[in-house]
Amino acid sequence: MKSEMIKEQLAQTIRDYHKKGWSPATSTNYSFRMPDNLDVVIVSRSGVDKSQFGAHDFIDVDLNGKTRPAFEGIKPSAETLIHCTLYKLFPEMQCILHSHSVYSVLHSAVNSDWVDLEGYEVLKGYEGINTHDTSVQVPIFDNTQDMLEFSEVLINQKERLTVPAFIMRKHGTYAWGRDLFEAKRHLETTEYLLEVEWKLRSK
Amino acid sequence: MKSEMIKEQLAQTIRDYHKKGWSPATSTNYSFRMPDNLDVVIVSRSGVDKSQFGAHDFIDVDLNGKTRPAFEGIKPSAETLIHCTLYKLFPEMQCILHSHSVYSVLHSAVNSDWVDLEGYEVLKGYEGINTHDTSVQVPIFDNTQDMLEFSEVLINQKERLTVPAFIMRKHGTYAWGRDLFEAKRHLETTEYLLEVEWKLRSK
Amino acid sequence: MKSEMIKEQLAQTIRDYHKKGWSPATSTNYSFRMPDNLDVVIVSRSGVDKSQFGAHDFIDVDLNGKTRPAFEGIKPSAETLIHCTLYKLFPEMQCILHSHSVYSVLHSAVNSDWVDLEGYEVLKGYEGINTHDTSVQVPIFDNTQDMLEFSEVLINQKERLTVPAFIMRKHGTYAWGRDLFEAKRHLETTEYLLEVEWKLRSK
Amino acid sequence: MKSEMIKEQLAQTIRDYHKKGWSPATSTNYSFRMPDNLDVVIVSRSGVDKSQFGAHDFIDVDLNGKTRPAFEGIKPSAETLIHCTLYKLFPEMQCILHSHSVYSVLHSAVNSDWVDLEGYEVLKGYEGINTHDTSVQVPIFDNTQDMLEFSEVLINQKERLTVPAFIMRKHGTYAWGRDLFEAKRHLETTEYLLEVEWKLRSK
Repeated sequence: MKSEMIKEQLAQTIRDYHKKGWSPATSTNYSFRMPDNLDVVIVSRSGVDKSQFGAHDFIDVDLNGKTRPAFEGIKPSAETLIHCTLYKLFPEMQCILHSHSVYSVLHSAVNSDWVDLEGYEVLKGYEGINTHDTSVQVPIFDNTQDMLEFSEVLINQKERLTVPAFIMRKHGTYAWGRDLFEAKRHLETTEYLLEVEWKLRSK
Repeated sequence: MKSEMIKEQLAQTIRDYHKKGWSPATSTNYSFRMPDNLDVVIVSRSGVDKSQFGAHDFIDVDLNGKTRPAFEGIKPSAETLIHCTLYKLFPEMQCILHSHSVYSVLHSAVNSDWVDLEGYEVLKGYEGINTHDTSVQVPIFDNTQDMLEFSEVLINQKERLTVPAFIMRKHGTYAWGRDLFEAKRHLETTEYLLEVEWKLRSK
Repeated sequence: MKSEMIKEQLAQTIRDYHKKGWSPATSTNYSFRMPDNLDVVIVSRSGVDKSQFGAHDFIDVDLNGKTRPAFEGIKPSAETLIHCTLYKLFPEMQCILHSHSVYSVLHSAVNSDWVDLEGYEVLKGYEGINTHDTSVQVPIFDNTQDMLEFSEVLINQKERLTVPAFIMRKHGTYAWGRDLFEAKRHLETTEYLLEVEWKLRSK
Repeated sequence: MKSEMIKEQLAQTIRDYHKKGWSPATSTNYSFRMPDNLDVVIVSRSGVDKSQFGAHDFIDVDLNGKTRPAFEGIKPSAETLIHCTLYKLFPEMQCILHSHSVYSVLHSAVNSDWVDLEGYEVLKGYEGINTHDTSVQVPIFDNTQDMLEFSEVLINQKERLTVPAFIMRKHGTYAWGRDLFEAKRHLETTEYLLEVEWKLRSK
C-alpha cells in the first residue's frame, strides 16, 4: 500500500539522518501529510531512539495535531503543532523534516534574526532558484516550549519564510517540500550551506 | 534469555560508539546491573578491540567490583570500581556508559571544574529537564589511576552530580541511566552539547 | 557487458561520494566516455537523489552534449557541456568526476585565482608527479550558469589546467582521468589536499 | 591457514582505515612479518585503491625488501624498505601500519622535530605506559623519496623512537606492534591524540 511505502521511506530517511548526527538520541520529529486523505498527518511518536526508528513508529493526527482514534494513548511528538501549522500555511506541502544539526544551532547562537547565504551554487537546491548569483535569508525564530505561541509567530511572520526552511534558536532546522524527495533536498541544501558558511566565518 | 538480550544490545551500542570515534582501540568500558539479580554487574572485560566487542566479552562482578567465581582469571576493566560506586550512589540506575570523546577531553583541558551548557533544546535529553530555558553544569573531576581515591571523590562530591554525567579530565565522559535506552540518551545528549559548545567557544 | 560494468562501478562511486558529503541532495554530475564508441558519453541525468543513484540513471549524449535518440526527453545534467569540453581538450581522458565538497567551496570563497599546494606526499596522487618536493596550483574559475561561456573560458585558459582538476568558485571541484580508477585518484587527492590546506591556514 | 587469516584481517583493517580518510585513493602501505617464517614480510602492493584492498593484494618480500620469486614482476609499495628497516630495528615487531591522516600532516607542517602529548588517559594505549600522568614525544622526520637515505636516518636516530610511532613530515604516521592487534592500538592511539592536540592548539 502506498501509505506503508511512504512510512518505510520516511523511516529510512530518519535513520540515515541520525547517522549524520542530526538527531542525538531521541530528538527531532518528522511528518507526512497523506496524499489519499489530506486530513491525516503521520508524525513520529515521542521518545523513540532515532537510530532504530521504524515504519510502525508513526502515529496519525488530524490537522490540529489531535491524535486520531486508532492511536489514542500514544504520545505524538511535542512539536506536532509546528508541523500542522506549516501544512496550513503551505497547503501544497506534504512532508516536513527537522534536524538538530550542530551548524544550525551554532549560527542561531551568534546571529539574531537570520543567516545570509550568498553566491553558492548549491542555493539552486531550493525550489525556484536557478542561479548561484543570488542570496537568501534563512530566518531564525526564538525557541519556546509553548507550541501555540510558536504557531502564532509562524502565522504572523509568514512573510519571513522566503525559503522552505527556518531555524529555531539553539534548537535546529525545519525544512519542508511537496514530497519526501523535495523536503530532503531542502533540508540537505540548508544544512550543507550552514556548514560551509559557519566554517567560512570561523576562519 | 533476558540477560543475553541485554548483553547483545549493549555490545551493539559499544560497536556503534566505536564507529563514532568515542573509544580508540581498546579504550573505554561499559556496564549493566542485572535486573534479575541486583548483586551482579556485567562489565566489559579489559583489552578487547571495541570494533569487535561481542556479547561474550562481558564478565560478572559483584557490587564491590570483585570478579564472580565463574569468571575468575579474566581481567575486568581497570575502572570497574567507578561503575560499582555509581551504582551504590544511584541505586535506581542500571546502565553506565563511558566515552573518550574528543570534545569531552578538550573542554576538560581548558576548563577547571565544570562545563556550563545553557539554553539548548537538547538539554531536554536529560531526564527531568522539560525546557531549553535552563542551564546545567557538567562537572569535571581530575583524572587518577587510583580508583579507590576516585570513588571517594565521587562519594564526597556527590552533590556536584546534578546531571547524570561527568567528565574525567583529559580522559572522557561517564553517563548513566535506569536502562540502556536512558543511558544512551544521557551520553549522546552530553556529547552533542559538548561538541556544539566547543565549536561555539572556538569561533 | 563492459558498458554495464562501467555504469555499475561509476554509480557505486557516486553513492560512496554522497556518503562523504560531496553531493548534498541531487547535486553534482559525473560522466564516462565509452571505450567502444568514443562519440558516446554517458552522463548522470538531472534531479536524482545521489544517495540512490543507480546504473540506469545515466543517459547517452554525443560529444556536443546533445541527448542521443534512445534517451530523448530525459534531461541530462545542466553541466553536461563542461564534461564534453573537457573530453575535447583532453582526448585521452575517459572519466570526469565532480564534487561540491565543503573545502573546495571554502578555498574558492577566500582565494581569487588558485590554491597553492606544496610539499605534500599525497601530491604524488596526481599522474606524473613523483615527489613531494614540488608544488601545484589548482586553478579557480568563476562560477556561471552560462555553460557555453564557461566552455570558452576553459578552452581559452587551457594552460591553467596544469593538474587534472579545477575549482568552480563557491561551487565545487572537477577532476578527470583516463579511467574511473585514475579519475577517483585525482579527485580524492585534490579533496584531501584542500582539506589539509584549509585546516592549516585556519589554525 | 594462518597466513591467509592474517592477510584477511590486515586487508579488513586497510579497508576500515580507508573509510576513516587515512588513505586517500591508493595511498599508504601496510605489512606483516610472517610468524612461521620470519624471513618473509607480506607488504601491500603498489597502486591498489584502498577501498577495495583484498587479501590477494599482498606480495612477499624478504627482509631487504626484495620481491620473492613467486611474486616477481609485481611492484611492492615504494616504501617497503621503511618496513624492512623497522623490522630489523625492532625484531619483536610483526606488524606495521601507516596512515596519511590529516592531523598527522598538520602537526608536522607547523612543528619541527616532535609533537608533545601530555596528561591524556589514552596515552595508556602505548605498550608500557600505565598512567595518564606522563608525556611522550612523537618524533617527526623530514619526508624524502630516497628510501635508503630514510632508512639510515631511522637507524642513526633510533633513540628518538621512544614510542612505537613516528611522523613523516607532510606525509603521515607509521606505527607498529607485536601483532595486528597491538599495531592497531598504537596507530589509533597516536591518531586520536594528534587530533585532540591539534584541536586544542587551534582553539
